[in-house]
Amino acid sequence: MWSNSCIFFVILVLSFIGENLCQTTPVWTYECIEGYCQKRRITPGSENTAISLSACQLLCSGYGSLWPQPTGEISIGNVLVHINFNSIDILEGRGENSVASLIRAGGKNFKKQIESLATPRAINSGGKSLIVTMDIADPEKTQLTLDTDESYSLKVSETSDGRMNATISAPTYFGGRHGLETLGQVIIYDDLRDQLQMPKDVYITDKPVYPYRGILLDTARNYISVATIKRTIDAISASKLNTLHWHITDTHSFPYVSTSRPELSQIGAYSKKKVYTPSDVEEIVKYAKERGVRVLPEFDAPAHVGEGWQDTDFVACFNKQPWQDYCVEPPCGQFDPTRPKLYDALENIYKDMIAQFNPDIFHMGGDEVSMSCWNSTPSIVEWMKAAYGWDRKEEDFIKLWDVFQSQALERFDRQAGKKIPIVMWTSTLTKKEYVEQYLPKDRYIIQIWTTGRDKVVSELLDAGYRLILSNYDALYLDCGYAGWVQGGNNWCSPYIGWQKLYDNSPAEIGGNRKNQFLGAEAALWTEQVDDTSVDSRIWPRAAALAERLWAEPTTNWRAAEPRMLIHRQRLVNRGIQADALEPEWCLQYEENCPLGGKFNRP
Amino acid sequence: MWSNSCIFFVILVLSFIGENLCQTTPVWTYECIEGYCQKRRITPGSENTAISLSACQLLCSGYGSLWPQPTGEISIGNVLVHINFNSIDILEGRGENSVASLIRAGGKNFKKQIESLATPRAINSGGKSLIVTMDIADPEKTQLTLDTDESYSLKVSETSDGRMNATISAPTYFGGRHGLETLGQVIIYDDLRDQLQMPKDVYITDKPVYPYRGILLDTARNYISVATIKRTIDAISASKLNTLHWHITDTHSFPYVSTSRPELSQIGAYSKKKVYTPSDVEEIVKYAKERGVRVLPEFDAPAHVGEGWQDTDFVACFNKQPWQDYCVEPPCGQFDPTRPKLYDALENIYKDMIAQFNPDIFHMGGDEVSMSCWNSTPSIVEWMKAAYGWDRKEEDFIKLWDVFQSQALERFDRQAGKKIPIVMWTSTLTKKEYVEQYLPKDRYIIQIWTTGRDKVVSELLDAGYRLILSNYDALYLDCGYAGWVQGGNNWCSPYIGWQKLYDNSPAEIGGNRKNQFLGAEAALWTEQVDDTSVDSRIWPRAAALAERLWAEPTTNWRAAEPRMLIHRQRLVNRGIQADALEPEWCLQYEENCPLGGKFNRP
Repeated sequence: MWSNSCIFFVILVLSFIGENLCQTTPVWTYECIEGYCQKRRITPGSENTAISLSACQLLCSGYGSLWPQPTGEISIGNVLVHINFNSIDILEGRGENSVASLIRAGGKNFKKQIESLATPRAINSGGKSLIVTMDIADPEKTQLTLDTDESYSLKVSETSDGRMNATISAPTYFGGRHGLETLGQVIIYDDLRDQLQMPKDVYITDKPVYPYRGILLDTARNYISVATIKRTIDAISASKLNTLHWHITDTHSFPYVSTSRPELSQIGAYSKKKVYTPSDVEEIVKYAKERGVRVLPEFDAPAHVGEGWQDTDFVACFNKQPWQDYCVEPPCGQFDPTRPKLYDALENIYKDMIAQFNPDIFHMGGDEVSMSCWNSTPSIVEWMKAAYGWDRKEEDFIKLWDVFQSQALERFDRQAGKKIPIVMWTSTLTKKEYVEQYLPKDRYIIQIWTTGRDKVVSELLDAGYRLILSNYDALYLDCGYAGWVQGGNNWCSPYIGWQKLYDNSPAEIGGNRKNQFLGAEAALWTEQVDDTSVDSRIWPRAAALAERLWAEPTTNWRAAEPRMLIHRQRLVNRGIQADALEPEWCLQYEENCPLGGKFNRP
Repeated sequence: MWSNSCIFFVILVLSFIGENLCQTTPVWTYECIEGYCQKRRITPGSENTAISLSACQLLCSGYGSLWPQPTGEISIGNVLVHINFNSIDILEGRGENSVASLIRAGGKNFKKQIESLATPRAINSGGKSLIVTMDIADPEKTQLTLDTDESYSLKVSETSDGRMNATISAPTYFGGRHGLETLGQVIIYDDLRDQLQMPKDVYITDKPVYPYRGILLDTARNYISVATIKRTIDAISASKLNTLHWHITDTHSFPYVSTSRPELSQIGAYSKKKVYTPSDVEEIVKYAKERGVRVLPEFDAPAHVGEGWQDTDFVACFNKQPWQDYCVEPPCGQFDPTRPKLYDALENIYKDMIAQFNPDIFHMGGDEVSMSCWNSTPSIVEWMKAAYGWDRKEEDFIKLWDVFQSQALERFDRQAGKKIPIVMWTSTLTKKEYVEQYLPKDRYIIQIWTTGRDKVVSELLDAGYRLILSNYDALYLDCGYAGWVQGGNNWCSPYIGWQKLYDNSPAEIGGNRKNQFLGAEAALWTEQVDDTSVDSRIWPRAAALAERLWAEPTTNWRAAEPRMLIHRQRLVNRGIQADALEPEWCLQYEENCPLGGKFNRP
């Protein structure tokens, strides 16, 4: 593409931007060589034809600087025009309707992102107007579900009177917003000319492969501020993921302010300030929706409870020592299914969460239930014997768990008023011998957290379950750091590089049952993370998952490496403290760094 | 200490702070049990005797919440008094002299730190005055050297008219500043009463075990902003380390603006903005000195050069491919010792650095010289043959290296006007068979970067060299992340936990030659780090090294764990984005988390 038209491109650009050339003589230009941008010295006399890194990145290879790579048609013309930030308008296409306020919010967000690319001088340096038309076919679809059509098309062209037109057509707002993100990614800042620019012609059609593309954030092991949660949503949306799975409570703390049971957070939060009030939740859910993101609440039970419940008798084994006998990490704590009033409390919490989140799916947790916790609680064992004649074997405790889960679900359904899909983690209950008896496959979605090669994956697929893949060996972002209950490194070490997330393919794992994968999710458990490093733990690694889920590319991380570095930079420009992956040198000399790269051949 | 006087303490505190008790009824108090703070429910009627976590931490165990642990006498009385932030005054003790402006700066910094602990309401809530007297014996010693006496004593008492007096006595400002840091650490914010408090009586004498206690920051693989460098200095100083080793240039970029050779950064910086101007350097050096920190500049040579030198013929193998044949990471580049004008350029750079840093020691790098780079450059090999009749064996290239190093040192000395100690990394040149011939031990300090068990350590000790320990297996903070020249993890994986830094003892490694260790240094090489995660990579892990070097404790990390969590929180309060180590729960229930901890016994 480039080799034939590079000179044409340069001439056209300079026909109208020459006068804005920066005062300082630029030293470097970028050449597109074999599809990779290479930093090259500007030769005397050729200063005016210098090409900025961002222009080169956008035009040098097939997917330009887009992340994730589009799955349909893609054509990015190689003529760049100078656009005027102050003349960007987003039109809603079909007048006032339910989706119009979302479009207004999306447009505002889009403009903020464009603004963050450039200097104030570039913002006010004139250029062509840009009219963005959002043509959303179904203006009533304002809730993301597993069936939502997230496709879009984007067409950019110049009008006869010299303005730029961008039309985004999509069945739903959620697709339209992806189109807006793509449009944002083809607008660049040229640091040589101090201008915002975009290609004169673009045509892209695009849609994701998997409907569920998530990030899990745990806000209970350590508290995560509302501002950080919002930044996480910004980055989710920049990467065309669509779900923030909010693991909001756990044994360690109960930061969720339940309107019905306010005492839980009064006692259970780390401090008075480390809570999520109803208005915080409302704000987060709204913020996410505007960015095309579902907030999926998890109320994990019957294990992973403790702090907050001290004034009840609902929790067994709380902070029981030595903890390693009763749970997987300190402190221990697990609901006692034999307490009838427990279910009233659960129903209250479900009611609050349903009202605030309006969830299309709900997560009930269900991981790491300790049989030895229940087994070591005499009243529980006695109740099992007295009520049902049950013994103390695994299958007996599974029945006890079913007592809990059935009642919890009944209470949930009563509050929801309908039967929405429930997600649960793999556990003893999802073992082949129990799962079909206790977790109907038309109701439950199973989230895998064991390894991708664990036989439970194929067993659940064979049994017909819909799955979400969070195999810890590729998708747990907390792995690899120091031990915290002992020296050495933490349990799921080593650290997982972005390359491993990229290459972790549900299609490959699922084989001919791949369609049962709704998608996947990268998880950040926060035992060793709080506000200071949420961004750098999740990003840019989770963006590698994003491209895998959006496109299921047949290529591996090596092909994506130059774009990955560009996307990381994009996240940083938008205020996300994403980790650096390589020296900046490797961004300026694409494909010079990896072993076996294009420019490594003798 | 606590068990006998706990009730007395509570009564005294409440005799004058009862009226300030927050409106919201507190839920939690902290009890000191067997030397550890435990969160406990406040029982009805005992609200007024509730103890804040920070008060408990300060008074519950021998070292309180101090980091690093003092090495001399320590006595912290268990009566806390409310102090008035607006009535804190720092007196300079002996009138106007060279050290007075440092004390003013140190005092200002101290007050800023205290202010950051508390709410605005607490700042203005009254309390006792605090007069801090800085009694510095030698007011002329304003440069930190390897011989500087960093000891201090701190005495806090109440005057007859009810004011608080703190006297810090020290031979030098550098000791006095450590005393100020310690004073800052015994002032706490009580969140139950919304007050700043401090013990009525304190007596501490203290001094470090090792004179060199450093952090290396690489600003060439990726650019690090001046603001981030300053934050790093803040944290160095909070942890009583004393050196920022600034690896300022490398093959990847040349951000250092040399007044004599400005073209180097014009060509070699990643961008026009990613540079360190003379005024940036001046600002950083001054900022560091005020905080008791030496900035040690490294100009790494003859390897680790490339970008910036393109207009000269001084560099061999620059960006030569395949890179793995000519260097350890891309891009390659190494000075060509046969170019006579090279030494003029070096002398210019030394001149600029000496003027700006006024270094008491200087780092000449000298690591990872590639024999195959020189060997593959025909002009070099021919010169060796023609000038000296040298062949192409290792010892011949070592002689070539000596040609470089001798001339570089001569030029350096000429500019310095005196012979200051030079630090160099372990390398082929420091092997037993070469080191004494080429690097005189009265002139060179060797910095170890191989493992702590490498025989080069004992060989250099036996030969009588002074050493700085940066063994990568315990002190390289960049280890454990993703690979960047290939998949998997980076070369020195796994990630090194703070526990390993804590337990990495120069005394143990040095045995009966331990006195030849000047100290140690944790290194952050920045191939995979830039501004977004410098803080979280270095901190709080480097603070573990800080206590090791300050105190050489006979205990290991387990004994330090509760204080480590407190110090991490301190760094965060001061604006350092230090990584979380454990759930906040483990801070609130000390010693409940580790395997084998006090509260884990059945």
